[in-house]
Amino acid sequence: MSFITNMSGVIAGAIGMIFTVFLTFKVLEKDPGNEKMVKISNAVQVGAKAFLISEYKILYIIVVLFALFLGIVNSWAMAFAFVFGATLSVLAGYFGMTIATRANTRTAQAATKSLGSALKVAFNGGAVMGMTVSSLGLLGLGTIFYFTKADAVIMSGYSMGASFVALFARVGGGIFTKAADVGADLVGKTEANIPEDDPRNPATIADNVGDNVGDVAGMGADLYESYVGSIFSASVLGSVFAMNNNIDHFSGAVFPFVVTAFGLLTAIFGIIFVNLTVKDKENIDPSKMLHMGTYLANIIEVIIVFIISKIFFGGYRAAVVITLGMLIGIIIGSVTEYYTAKKPVEKLAKSANSGAAPVIISGIAIGMESTAIPVILIAVGTILSYTIMGDLFGIALAGVGMLATLGVTLAIDAYGPIADNAGGIAEMAHLDPEVRKKTDLLDAVGNTTAAIGKGFAIGSAALTALALFASFTQVTGISAVDLTQTTVFIGTLIGAMLPFLFSSMAMNAVGDSANVMVQEVRRQFKEIPGLMEGKAEPDYAKCVSIATNGALRKMIMPSVLAVLSPIIGYYLIGITGVAGMLVGTTVSGVMLAIFMSNSGGAWDNAKKYIESGKEGGKGSMAHKASVIGDTVGDPFKDTAGPAINILIKLMSIVSIVIIPILMRLGK
Amino acid sequence: MSFITNMSGVIAGAIGMIFTVFLTFKVLEKDPGNEKMVKISNAVQVGAKAFLISEYKILYIIVVLFALFLGIVNSWAMAFAFVFGATLSVLAGYFGMTIATRANTRTAQAATKSLGSALKVAFNGGAVMGMTVSSLGLLGLGTIFYFTKADAVIMSGYSMGASFVALFARVGGGIFTKAADVGADLVGKTEANIPEDDPRNPATIADNVGDNVGDVAGMGADLYESYVGSIFSASVLGSVFAMNNNIDHFSGAVFPFVVTAFGLLTAIFGIIFVNLTVKDKENIDPSKMLHMGTYLANIIEVIIVFIISKIFFGGYRAAVVITLGMLIGIIIGSVTEYYTAKKPVEKLAKSANSGAAPVIISGIAIGMESTAIPVILIAVGTILSYTIMGDLFGIALAGVGMLATLGVTLAIDAYGPIADNAGGIAEMAHLDPEVRKKTDLLDAVGNTTAAIGKGFAIGSAALTALALFASFTQVTGISAVDLTQTTVFIGTLIGAMLPFLFSSMAMNAVGDSANVMVQEVRRQFKEIPGLMEGKAEPDYAKCVSIATNGALRKMIMPSVLAVLSPIIGYYLIGITGVAGMLVGTTVSGVMLAIFMSNSGGAWDNAKKYIESGKEGGKGSMAHKASVIGDTVGDPFKDTAGPAINILIKLMSIVSIVIIPILMRLGK
Repeated sequence: MSFITNMSGVIAGAIGMIFTVFLTFKVLEKDPGNEKMVKISNAVQVGAKAFLISEYKILYIIVVLFALFLGIVNSWAMAFAFVFGATLSVLAGYFGMTIATRANTRTAQAATKSLGSALKVAFNGGAVMGMTVSSLGLLGLGTIFYFTKADAVIMSGYSMGASFVALFARVGGGIFTKAADVGADLVGKTEANIPEDDPRNPATIADNVGDNVGDVAGMGADLYESYVGSIFSASVLGSVFAMNNNIDHFSGAVFPFVVTAFGLLTAIFGIIFVNLTVKDKENIDPSKMLHMGTYLANIIEVIIVFIISKIFFGGYRAAVVITLGMLIGIIIGSVTEYYTAKKPVEKLAKSANSGAAPVIISGIAIGMESTAIPVILIAVGTILSYTIMGDLFGIALAGVGMLATLGVTLAIDAYGPIADNAGGIAEMAHLDPEVRKKTDLLDAVGNTTAAIGKGFAIGSAALTALALFASFTQVTGISAVDLTQTTVFIGTLIGAMLPFLFSSMAMNAVGDSANVMVQEVRRQFKEIPGLMEGKAEPDYAKCVSIATNGALRKMIMPSVLAVLSPIIGYYLIGITGVAGMLVGTTVSGVMLAIFMSNSGGAWDNAKKYIESGKEGGKGSMAHKASVIGDTVGDPFKDTAGPAINILIKLMSIVSIVIIPILMRLGK
Repeated sequence: MSFITNMSGVIAGAIGMIFTVFLTFKVLEKDPGNEKMVKISNAVQVGAKAFLISEYKILYIIVVLFALFLGIVNSWAMAFAFVFGATLSVLAGYFGMTIATRANTRTAQAATKSLGSALKVAFNGGAVMGMTVSSLGLLGLGTIFYFTKADAVIMSGYSMGASFVALFARVGGGIFTKAADVGADLVGKTEANIPEDDPRNPATIADNVGDNVGDVAGMGADLYESYVGSIFSASVLGSVFAMNNNIDHFSGAVFPFVVTAFGLLTAIFGIIFVNLTVKDKENIDPSKMLHMGTYLANIIEVIIVFIISKIFFGGYRAAVVITLGMLIGIIIGSVTEYYTAKKPVEKLAKSANSGAAPVIISGIAIGMESTAIPVILIAVGTILSYTIMGDLFGIALAGVGMLATLGVTLAIDAYGPIADNAGGIAEMAHLDPEVRKKTDLLDAVGNTTAAIGKGFAIGSAALTALALFASFTQVTGISAVDLTQTTVFIGTLIGAMLPFLFSSMAMNAVGDSANVMVQEVRRQFKEIPGLMEGKAEPDYAKCVSIATNGALRKMIMPSVLAVLSPIIGYYLIGITGVAGMLVGTTVSGVMLAIFMSNSGGAWDNAKKYIESGKEGGKGSMAHKASVIGDTVGDPFKDTAGPAINILIKLMSIVSIVIIPILMRLGK
């Protein structure tokens, strides 16, 4: 029994990987479509692979240097855990992306048969990502946990590795995808008046590559770190909780692993459920089926959690807290959906009749307003889970509850870009417009079903940051972080500034790269004879390389900012100052992340809403204004917004890992 | 001696008022120009007066109710101080605005003679505002101080009255001015292709009214509250400092009054200096002369402060801290100027060649980046002034240093809208285009010279908020605000959300009102025959009334948010929770305020830069894109941004005043 629980992460992770292999074959056995489709898909694959490999090269230089530092000043076990955590993240992102770039053409081909078939292929492609991320995350951290007997310090190394990769992948991928997207749209849609994904647009392939390296690989690395971070911090606080309550500390430390292990299994169940219920026919309701898969997995997980809570702690408080976390995540998801897909979006679309400026103003107002309810929910969730559990462990567990079934929620998230890409391929390969309609429908459904996943991600990020903050105060042994001390207040102020500076770097990177892209696309339109008439092929590779270089050069500074700030802070304003800084970054970062993601989402959907024929439809003045809104939203929602969530946690984990070392080395 | 120092605020305030009367006559004796100009100027005056009176009516309902509450549950002395503080603010705003609306046509008329004459009229018009605000502020607070013998509680009532009016005036005025401005620009410039301030545009008068009620009266109330708030909090902390250092506590409490009293006198000197050096001729350098006036006043103030510091405390530490505050304010001002007028703006203008979306993205990135240096400066200033003085009093004094010479810095700030309005009148009255050129030049100079004033305003807001936070912990008797307590952390999180929610309300209000305005302007262009040909007059009054109604209805909710949040917070998360909330609001509010103000400023100047002939000049694609940026920036820099500064302080002062009462009443 004890062996099984201690190995629960490893066992579930291994089962998950086996299931992933099975899913992979299920995707690959599908028909990839005609020659043209395969050619396009290959171009996307080659571009994505080339970018990721370049990205990883730069990343590994930094990872290895940092590992050497950790090994020399602290322990080689920690250094190994750090590299291990980073490497599994890289593998998960790379593998998930590889399958996603193969699932896209297969989805397009399946769409020529039926909506149901296409849904299944795209979903399974996303599920490969979801399962790889959660299985490898749990397997890796579980292994470290088992062999080090729950050593918090070595686990923190693993978690930091995950955060490192996540930040680079999100920032690098985010810059790539949006530079390409903005560049493609600005000239293509606005100036040349050709539709999205038109093969005449030289930036099209880069745009599709971007979807894969940013929205798939980047998101994978992002959630890998959230998942690992939430389990790690819950495990550390669980151990403390158990000791305070006269329970064996090990059972407190292992509990989060058992919870997520079962979460992984229920996610598998959810994925199988979707596969069984979706029939290969036209007349299906994709939204309902995807929702059913998520809900079912969560409901079963709740039942199981109640049982294991009783076994571990002799009561149900832990289970109540986990369920609470899930519920709050779902409500935050609904709020997100409301602001990015319901009434506010219709109002936003209406304001587009008055021009681009009102669209921007209203969109920003929507995003800012959308911070209120999630923050209040997080506050309520924090206080309730703390009170119910009587300990910080409760807060960490609520965060774990949100991510326990990540396998299936991420599947639904990652399925969106696959459907989107499938649409791109259908367009470029000149398939029947009906195919594009189906993939567009799947993409649109994905946007709303993904809201739950986003709610989980936002909620858990905030709760995990809070749990990591608690861990930080514990490892550094500070008993209070008193805001009436000037250094703490100042730390909070500076911390609150960092997400703004960070966002500006990310936005500037997108803006600059997109500018270069725009010049290049314009140049090709002008200099390549017969391009607009579809008689000549554009130089796709040039655009891919512009996006690659821009992203690689510009992902470094924001990452350095995240790593160095707490270290510099330690020397200037001391430990409690850094603690204040972490709080400042968390609170302002949570706002900015929600604001930017939701403004971006609302603009995106307002454009789609108008394109569906409302407020004058495509080509109207309102449509033009909404395209500008959508373009502004791109770096908001896909570069800066999600990266801030990682910034918050990376700063916390760097502080947890590095500052005790600096303390030991003497100031 | 002691009588004179204790009365220093009253004496200097009275001298200031006498000087103001003199200045007023100097403005009014000027030629108001031809009949048409007077007619336009009258229309603006009537509209502005009508709006302010309606605004004050609503305001006074709330002020009186609140005063009754204070009188019943606490003391009638405090209730009186509250109404007194509010009323002097109202008077200052109203009087300043009245003179400003008379100075505009006189400036236009003077510009037909020479640039120097125009500069002098506009500057003196602004100086009336600057002197009224600082004289009445100091006179009122000084009176309360003298008669209550430095009673902190009663002074807090006065300060709260100032904050109340400031929030209403900034939000109401800000909504009015930007709804009118955006509405006028969207249809006028973008659709009808007529220049700004063209008399055919039905929203022109409303736009000019807006400049006066928002940028003049609103700004006046804003700085009145900053000025009063900084003196009040410094006085309270000065008293504590003196007691801790075995000095008579009264001399600590009166010191800030003496400092600002001399600041008022040096400001008068600065204003006289500008009047003496500016000659009535064409060939002058307005920028240099305005800068000289400010610098001179500050330098003399520094010398005086060193002398009185020695007299009061037997050393120069207080003087060093005050000088430090000034220097930091000046540097923040230079940073503001850099981001809103130098290289970043040129880059922004360049990005306009790629369209509106890149302009928006880059502008937001500029604003976000611009938070970094000011925040670091504020942090350094806080720590240094705390360390040098060995007490929180140092932080408050640094804030006082930034605002001591408000009379002259605000003069230079308020002169901008007067020059702007003069240009509008010149345009509408079909004066020689040369006149417009001169007023445009004055306006442009004002934008950059005003940067120092903005630096002072931002810096002092942050420092004053910190000082008020310290006062809050003192009046409530809490010894620590520990972030490791869940309620404090949660308070910080919720507090950080409030400026976002508040901004969204303000932006939405502008967006909604502007939408109604756009419909009305379009309707008039369509339905009034001969309007576009200049043969018929538009219905200006209708547009004024739309802006008025929109502003009045929508200024209430944001203000309620500011007042109720700490009270609700107290019942839900307790005193330390509210303390966390204040810190959260301060840190995220400071970022948002700097970000929004500077993004807005950069867009404004990028447009002007392009209009000066760069990047294709007027009518180019880049110009159109930059107009969209400028329009988005309007509510950023003139509605939401500056209002957040007040939000921060109003929440603090409400907490200081109300929460001790709630504590006494029992939960």
